Amino acid sequence: MSSRRVTIAEIAASAGVSVPTVSKVLNGRADVSAATRKRVQQIMADRGYQRRSSGPQRPVGLIDMAVPGLDSPWVVDVLRGAEAEAHKVGSQIVLTSTGRAPAGDPRWLDRLATRRSDGLVLVVNEAAPEAVAQLSALHTPVVLLDPVGGSDPSFATVGATNWAGGLSAVEHLVSLGHRRIAAISGRPKLMCSQERVEGYRAALGRAGIPVDERLVRFTEFCTEGGREGARAVLDLPDPPTAIFAGSDMQALGVYQEAAARGLRIPEDLSVVGFDDIAFAELASPPLTTVRQPLARMAAEAVRLLLDADDHMPGPPPRVELATHLVVRGSTGPAPGSA
Amino acid sequence: MSSRRVTIAEIAASAGVSVPTVSKVLNGRADVSAATRKRVQQIMADRGYQRRSSGPQRPVGLIDMAVPGLDSPWVVDVLRGAEAEAHKVGSQIVLTSTGRAPAGDPRWLDRLATRRSDGLVLVVNEAAPEAVAQLSALHTPVVLLDPVGGSDPSFATVGATNWAGGLSAVEHLVSLGHRRIAAISGRPKLMCSQERVEGYRAALGRAGIPVDERLVRFTEFCTEGGREGARAVLDLPDPPTAIFAGSDMQALGVYQEAAARGLRIPEDLSVVGFDDIAFAELASPPLTTVRQPLARMAAEAVRLLLDADDHMPGPPPRVELATHLVVRGSTGPAPGSA
Repeated sequence: MSSRRVTIAEIAASAGVSVPTVSKVLNGRADVSAATRKRVQQIMADRGYQRRSSGPQRPVGLIDMAVPGLDSPWVVDVLRGAEAEAHKVGSQIVLTSTGRAPAGDPRWLDRLATRRSDGLVLVVNEAAPEAVAQLSALHTPVVLLDPVGGSDPSFATVGATNWAGGLSAVEHLVSLGHRRIAAISGRPKLMCSQERVEGYRAALGRAGIPVDERLVRFTEFCTEGGREGARAVLDLPDPPTAIFAGSDMQALGVYQEAAARGLRIPEDLSVVGFDDIAFAELASPPLTTVRQPLARMAAEAVRLLLDADDHMPGPPPRVELATHLVVRGSTGPAPGSA
Repeated sequence: MSSRRVTIAEIAASAGVSVPTVSKVLNGRADVSAATRKRVQQIMADRGYQRRSSGPQRPVGLIDMAVPGLDSPWVVDVLRGAEAEAHKVGSQIVLTSTGRAPAGDPRWLDRLATRRSDGLVLVVNEAAPEAVAQLSALHTPVVLLDPVGGSDPSFATVGATNWAGGLSAVEHLVSLGHRRIAAISGRPKLMCSQERVEGYRAALGRAGIPVDERLVRFTEFCTEGGREGARAVLDLPDPPTAIFAGSDMQALGVYQEAAARGLRIPEDLSVVGFDDIAFAELASPPLTTVRQPLARMAAEAVRLLLDADDHMPGPPPRVELATHLVVRGSTGPAPGSA
């Protein structure tokens, strides 16, 4: 691909429309048919069209933030971090819940194109990668906040050290004498699921413990997913003495399954989660977990947006913030190891 | 007070400034000293100044929402309801966390005055009443979302039926045979704290149970507050067999104190909360609680804003949405009542 900028005239020619029509699409005007708009946007995305900067613009004090939903307990941490960082420069967060089809809503894309915005933080979920391309055509800086790890190299991204987090969780369990340790994580197509389980494998490997694949389960990042995974591994003839769950919600599902079987935590079963949502320390017993600094990750994403003009040449930055293990009451010595 | 509209000239005369200076304050211009701005805004608020409508304006698709903080688990419910309702009309939520001094931040008031907005939903907290007056001078519709019940009659408000909620919680406990029932709520200066406790008193009264004032505690609406209240009533020579907590976070504090004393829930102690935050059903045991329909309350607040032009003459509407009791595992028969 040539490094020369593609022009509006070329986009118009490819789309078989007039230059003014392309302008209308760029300016989010409503008097363009949906089909034409879509075709033009697709060509702009394919050709890597970038609106020529008309010099530095005065910030409008609005930063768009698109989250996959407002029902996960971790979303509030993300919003807190972003709002606080925006507040420092007198800006505010414009909130969009993209549901299952992030950035795919043409009305929302239109609004982003029409209304001025100082940038967009897109909180990535599973469905994001397909939609991300459509954002390239917007004349707005985009930063991906990426707790699931599907990083797109064409945008600046902020994530967490998932692999190191999984490693630290399982090293903690090994240090308590556990040898039969299960891992329950989210869907394998999510990078973060894989990375956390790879951290688990690495910790077992370092301790000389072979991985028993029957102890590794990929379910959903929710309570029911955790419970399903716990059921599967606790039904084994040689069940684990500890479970590393890839999310706190899954860990709470493990709590439910343990309670249903009369297993005490941590006496009979140790449990480690991932995220450190607000409820982790309120659970009974308080949950040992890998803290993902979600508020700081969101603040970092906002900072990257605001500094977008200062970026060095080269690929957009990827920032990974460190996780760390928070030991609470849900982990203890392996039964019989004392 | 005369019903005649107060004019800008009168405001200017009262403030001892020129008419253009008042205009600058109204338009959120920065070239006015902070002291002058404050004096003019105060006089506008005192005199009930309302900007003359310049006819129907095209909505900008932005609805401001100011929440007291982004660390309460119920905030995410409020945001979900507001975002979904705004989405229906193609609008988005602009989020501000006002911290401990809602609407008191002059920079934020300035931005609200300068940037166009279709309205403001102010989620009321304790500190709000003093600041609410400053909002009257803005040329933007305001609706108070008022889970704490400090309703200001000059604005449309949306709340919940706190008294009926407290009543239903305690009637449930009475029906299970409890007679020694404690109430732990938030600070008494919060209307909702009082109303929930008054519902408690009414339920006891209907059952012919005298109120023992030692069993009524006002602490803070947080886990530590719940724990403090539980400690006080469980230390009594004749401790309660059931506790009605004025918030779920307080109920979780009661759980902690019960665990510390080896009391089983619900065998030794029944617990009812208030709110039905996401974690209520994930607690062990799952928490019986009074559901406050926060998402629907927020949606209603947004709807009132969007319909602001259709309001009937007379005082602004106050809408109370019904709470209802959700019975889970934390309540059971009173010990010895079987």
